Amino acid sequence: MKLKIALLAGDGIGPEVIDQAVKVSNAIAKKYNHEINWTPALTGAAAIDAVGEPYPDETHAICEAADAVLFGAIGHPRFDNDPSAKVRPEQGLLKMRQKLGLFANVRPTFTFPSLIDKSPLKRERIEGTDLIILRELTGGVYFGERGRKDNGNTAFDTMTYTRAEIQRLAKKGFEMAMGRSKKLCCVDKANVLESSRLWRETVQAMEKDYPEVTVSYEFVDAVAMRLVQWPSSYDVIITENLFGDILTDEASVISGSMGLMPSASVGSKVRLYEPIHGSYPQAAGKDIANPLATVLSAAMMFEDFDLKEEAQAIRDVVNKSLTEGVVSEDLAEGGKAYKTSEIGDWLAKNI
Amino acid sequence: MKLKIALLAGDGIGPEVIDQAVKVSNAIAKKYNHEINWTPALTGAAAIDAVGEPYPDETHAICEAADAVLFGAIGHPRFDNDPSAKVRPEQGLLKMRQKLGLFANVRPTFTFPSLIDKSPLKRERIEGTDLIILRELTGGVYFGERGRKDNGNTAFDTMTYTRAEIQRLAKKGFEMAMGRSKKLCCVDKANVLESSRLWRETVQAMEKDYPEVTVSYEFVDAVAMRLVQWPSSYDVIITENLFGDILTDEASVISGSMGLMPSASVGSKVRLYEPIHGSYPQAAGKDIANPLATVLSAAMMFEDFDLKEEAQAIRDVVNKSLTEGVVSEDLAEGGKAYKTSEIGDWLAKNI
Ligand SMILES: CC(C)[C@H](C(=O)O)[C@@H](O)C(=O)O
Ligand SMILES: CC(C)[C@H](C(=O)O)[C@@H](O)C(=O)O
Repeated sequence: MKLKIALLAGDGIGPEVIDQAVKVSNAIAKKYNHEINWTPALTGAAAIDAVGEPYPDETHAICEAADAVLFGAIGHPRFDNDPSAKVRPEQGLLKMRQKLGLFANVRPTFTFPSLIDKSPLKRERIEGTDLIILRELTGGVYFGERGRKDNGNTAFDTMTYTRAEIQRLAKKGFEMAMGRSKKLCCVDKANVLESSRLWRETVQAMEKDYPEVTVSYEFVDAVAMRLVQWPSSYDVIITENLFGDILTDEASVISGSMGLMPSASVGSKVRLYEPIHGSYPQAAGKDIANPLATVLSAAMMFEDFDLKEEAQAIRDVVNKSLTEGVVSEDLAEGGKAYKTSEIGDWLAKNI
Repeated sequence: MKLKIALLAGDGIGPEVIDQAVKVSNAIAKKYNHEINWTPALTGAAAIDAVGEPYPDETHAICEAADAVLFGAIGHPRFDNDPSAKVRPEQGLLKMRQKLGLFANVRPTFTFPSLIDKSPLKRERIEGTDLIILRELTGGVYFGERGRKDNGNTAFDTMTYTRAEIQRLAKKGFEMAMGRSKKLCCVDKANVLESSRLWRETVQAMEKDYPEVTVSYEFVDAVAMRLVQWPSSYDVIITENLFGDILTDEASVISGSMGLMPSASVGSKVRLYEPIHGSYPQAAGKDIANPLATVLSAAMMFEDFDLKEEAQAIRDVVNKSLTEGVVSEDLAEGGKAYKTSEIGDWLAKNI
């Protein structure tokens, strides 16, 4: 297969972890006889510094022309405490999601047997957890009208959803549930929000098309509790953008493998793959970050190209690295901590 | 002291747990020579059934005339899956918060030594946790304009805040931090939301008035993670209404004592005290619910009337009941499970 991949390293540790995913992907390509064409492009704070824009048109053109996008991380602390900053790295991320039509973020949370004791949760609570949160990514309060009134003394943001936006996300959720345990949980705040009532009514109306799927409706506050109490009780969760932002991050730490969780953003055209962790600026340039989430994001990418053996080969070598203790300092527990680049080399060699 | 307390039992297990708090409070009044005058009033689904309204004017009048309100729980499943219901119990709660001016919800999360192993978190993660979330309660997306457009196919909710609303909440947060460890964390989503940027800018401007307080600013998604990873790293957290709804519930389960967590809602006039758990309809009428969160809410009430000894006496007897195993089925662990009413009787007798 010939693959054209846009490579958006982004900020902080982005470039370092992306490098390792490229090494591993190239090793896979060599072994299985594929050809990968990587096209790097600017995004985030790096792009603001270079061209004044966090998601430049040129980057968009490269993404649109690609078969998929591999993405590192975005965000830089110098923008966070400056509420008046006009251009922010995150705007690039939002613009990219919108312009590429990436309306669904797929975030699995699963456990690695060798890492289960790193979870803040007790073993018996977390064992068997294997859930997917499907977060709506191009609607809601992230993209509604916002602004100031009264000389800047009142601020507002609008959370808005259309039935069609909910349907296309929910459809993916139902389909995903069909391929798994046929259990779907729709998370909302329908006891307060009108947009949540539209979510609930839309998903309820779709139930008849998927008679085999058991659908439950839960309030976001209750789910924030149950994810910590009984994470293994969930399978596929669908939810709107802001709730998804909070719940996916919460879910990511319960497994104890936060540094390993990959994600895919999907939509109409190209798909995007990225680690769920952030840009971790304190570690940038130090060659100490854990590259496995990005490497496993590459595995999701191969899987979606229907290259299942290739995807499995990546997951196997990652498992091997964990079992043999070839890990970065976050997982080293007093043992030897490998450098980011060393882990990438080791994985590529062992493919 | 003479106290006039409005008694809003509400729905589900509300009436049962409220009864026990009354027993305990009366025992305290007797012992310390106070006079408590209880005035029951309707609210929630119970009020809808009786008078068609979840927070009737008469109830409001009773609350306004009282020195404090003791509240049970609100909500009934028959409304939850009916997105078209015109009147909902929760509207009563929101109306009550607004009409009584209860702009801040104070929710402590702490551990009971005897219950720490009930936490889903490992002991070393949860030990030493003692934090307070101060949630804004009468603003944000709960009270902004909402509705439908396009023949009901588009729904919107508006998240809105004024500088004054943020200031009065933040002021309480700074003051609370001054009386504790002088650490304040402001939680927002300032990398996306304009209302969050107003929060951040308002709190930043107040820092100079509290030079001793160290303020940190964190994104809500990051806090949803860190609350599970390192809950003891937090002390006082301030946040807006919706984020507070999610984070307080998340925080409530990490201690392992969800059924024991009290809360106070404070504002300009009267204060309201309530357990943080919900109406738990499955258990209603069975005399099996855990009354301790409501009993401890009464303790918070005495504390706020500056009756510190009385408050401590309640906390002591609750501790005693836990140590001696006089507990409801959620805490019984195969041992004897006491009935709700039996626990109330035991506590009152042991005061
Ligand atoms: C950086 C930020 C805008 C972004 C979001 O909130 O969507 C991030 O938290 C994420 O989840 O990808
Ligand atoms: C019942 C509901 C409207 C309410 C809220 O969201 O505020 C509840 O979850 C709470 O936290 O008190």
